Amino acid sequence: MNGKHPVKIIGSGIYLPAVVSSATIEEKFGLPKGWAEKYSGVSSRHHVTFESNGFMAARAIEKALNFAEKRVSDMDLIISAGATFDFPLPNQSSVVKNELEDRLLSDVGTIDIDTTCLSFVSAFEFAAKLLDGRQYKNIVIVSAEIASKGLNSKNFETLTLFGDGAAAFILSFDESGESQFLKGGLRTYAEGVFHTHIKGGGNQYFFKDHPYDEDLHSFNMQGKKLLRLAKQKGPEFVNWFFKDSGIQMDEIKVVIPHQASKVGISIFKHTLPFEEEKFKGNISTHGNCIAASIPILLHQTIEAGELERGALCMLVGTSAGFSIGAVVFKY
Amino acid sequence: MNGKHPVKIIGSGIYLPAVVSSATIEEKFGLPKGWAEKYSGVSSRHHVTFESNGFMAARAIEKALNFAEKRVSDMDLIISAGATFDFPLPNQSSVVKNELEDRLLSDVGTIDIDTTCLSFVSAFEFAAKLLDGRQYKNIVIVSAEIASKGLNSKNFETLTLFGDGAAAFILSFDESGESQFLKGGLRTYAEGVFHTHIKGGGNQYFFKDHPYDEDLHSFNMQGKKLLRLAKQKGPEFVNWFFKDSGIQMDEIKVVIPHQASKVGISIFKHTLPFEEEKFKGNISTHGNCIAASIPILLHQTIEAGELERGALCMLVGTSAGFSIGAVVFKY
Repeated sequence: MNGKHPVKIIGSGIYLPAVVSSATIEEKFGLPKGWAEKYSGVSSRHHVTFESNGFMAARAIEKALNFAEKRVSDMDLIISAGATFDFPLPNQSSVVKNELEDRLLSDVGTIDIDTTCLSFVSAFEFAAKLLDGRQYKNIVIVSAEIASKGLNSKNFETLTLFGDGAAAFILSFDESGESQFLKGGLRTYAEGVFHTHIKGGGNQYFFKDHPYDEDLHSFNMQGKKLLRLAKQKGPEFVNWFFKDSGIQMDEIKVVIPHQASKVGISIFKHTLPFEEEKFKGNISTHGNCIAASIPILLHQTIEAGELERGALCMLVGTSAGFSIGAVVFKY
Repeated sequence: MNGKHPVKIIGSGIYLPAVVSSATIEEKFGLPKGWAEKYSGVSSRHHVTFESNGFMAARAIEKALNFAEKRVSDMDLIISAGATFDFPLPNQSSVVKNELEDRLLSDVGTIDIDTTCLSFVSAFEFAAKLLDGRQYKNIVIVSAEIASKGLNSKNFETLTLFGDGAAAFILSFDESGESQFLKGGLRTYAEGVFHTHIKGGGNQYFFKDHPYDEDLHSFNMQGKKLLRLAKQKGPEFVNWFFKDSGIQMDEIKVVIPHQASKVGISIFKHTLPFEEEKFKGNISTHGNCIAASIPILLHQTIEAGELERGALCMLVGTSAGFSIGAVVFKY
């Protein structure tokens, strides 16, 4: 059995840019009316106009701090958890800190964690294990993603699926016993390493030698292969995750699945032995916001009063690489 | 005082690509003979020819596993800690795993940590705090960096300073008491957020709208501003790090500073109250290898028999963002 960690969510906040309806996208790219909702399950999503990743992240953090009645100077670490970024250098968390109004009022350290769509989930586990009530009392995790810039105009599936947005959570060391971190875990299946891929822009297809080309520099997803792998590995992951965990699965009250795609979500519903009503979702109004999907949905679930203090909650999803990951905590 | 963690380094390995002498670079770019060694303190470094980040990382991991007499299937997590990458997606650690000969023999999870030059240092702290002897018994950290592709041919300082290479370490949960993790810490000073910068290639200067331009897409370093900030913040960081740490500074036997630059290293020697002979260095034969500098030097120090089991070792450095970070452990 795993050690429990005295960790409590004391605040959260989100930032969402302008709404873009599926009708607008369908019209712009000559798609049949209703295509997006039918195939992607998305009727609207948010896309940036003026916003940067750092800007959205900072606004989400400030809302979370306000809610928790804390300041940046109360924080002992800022984790930026995501796959997209403003600049190749410095790391995104430093850029996020610099976008905060109080950027110079604290020398709190900043670090980036990237497990693509599962970045928030991984950061949640790491933060929980860093929090010790001494050096680390409060940690901010923020996921701010801009997916809209890297989409291929010829690929209708991804074009209609992805959205932008940000969410921030403050995790605190709290020994009251009301809230606890129970378990986190991640498995990576190398068979699916390039089922989702952006080829160009790193060292392998360096900019200097490879001018912009939509196919090379856009997001590519082999949807069918991905779904087959998720179906195949899902049950194995669930067994691995819960074995010796000490967690009674039927005690889990709320499941926040990554909003990968309409079919991706349905696979999770088939793989996990939970009643339909425990699964939350927002894909129809937000699309897939990469690493920001899970924390945006978690924030909305809490705000709607659908996750009670002391209830068990599971965050779970798949990510590029190909990985499956989850955390379970007592909210 | 911080809790000590029962963590032991049980193996390490490095991979270095072909040697490039300063004479070769001076000749190629029309620099006066001897310029590189005089101004950068680098007489030779390694630059990739055919190697990718993932290739170098996998070879370093395999050497570390061999040394430790372990297999990939004994590992509970693979952390890729660095600033440069093969592809924008998936995350680098998934690419690294896929380069391992035994990639399909284990579904071990993989995650990326990026605090630029301090990535290995941050990953070391995180790994130490994850290791619990139950879910996490062994964690691999690998830093593999290719700096040579992003250099500006007009900037002689960076052109002669940077090198490529990789190093991997295996950290194990070990309660024998011989080895321990004592403390890690990071402080980020937003004043220096863009003192080191690669502007182009992220969402702010998206490649679609900003074709390759050497100034936009190369590494830019404001050396003087950076050194001034390091001098100013160094003593504050040292006070913050050691205060209430329970670490006796004079018990530290070996210091592994990031090989930032000739002057950068000298600032650390002035800021930290250690005898000159405790500082290790390899900048003259390796240059600055970004996040790989510290673990390559640590590996070489161990291999040379200059760090004894049970002795205290400090890893310390600066990174883009601007951050200062360190860990202290009993080897």
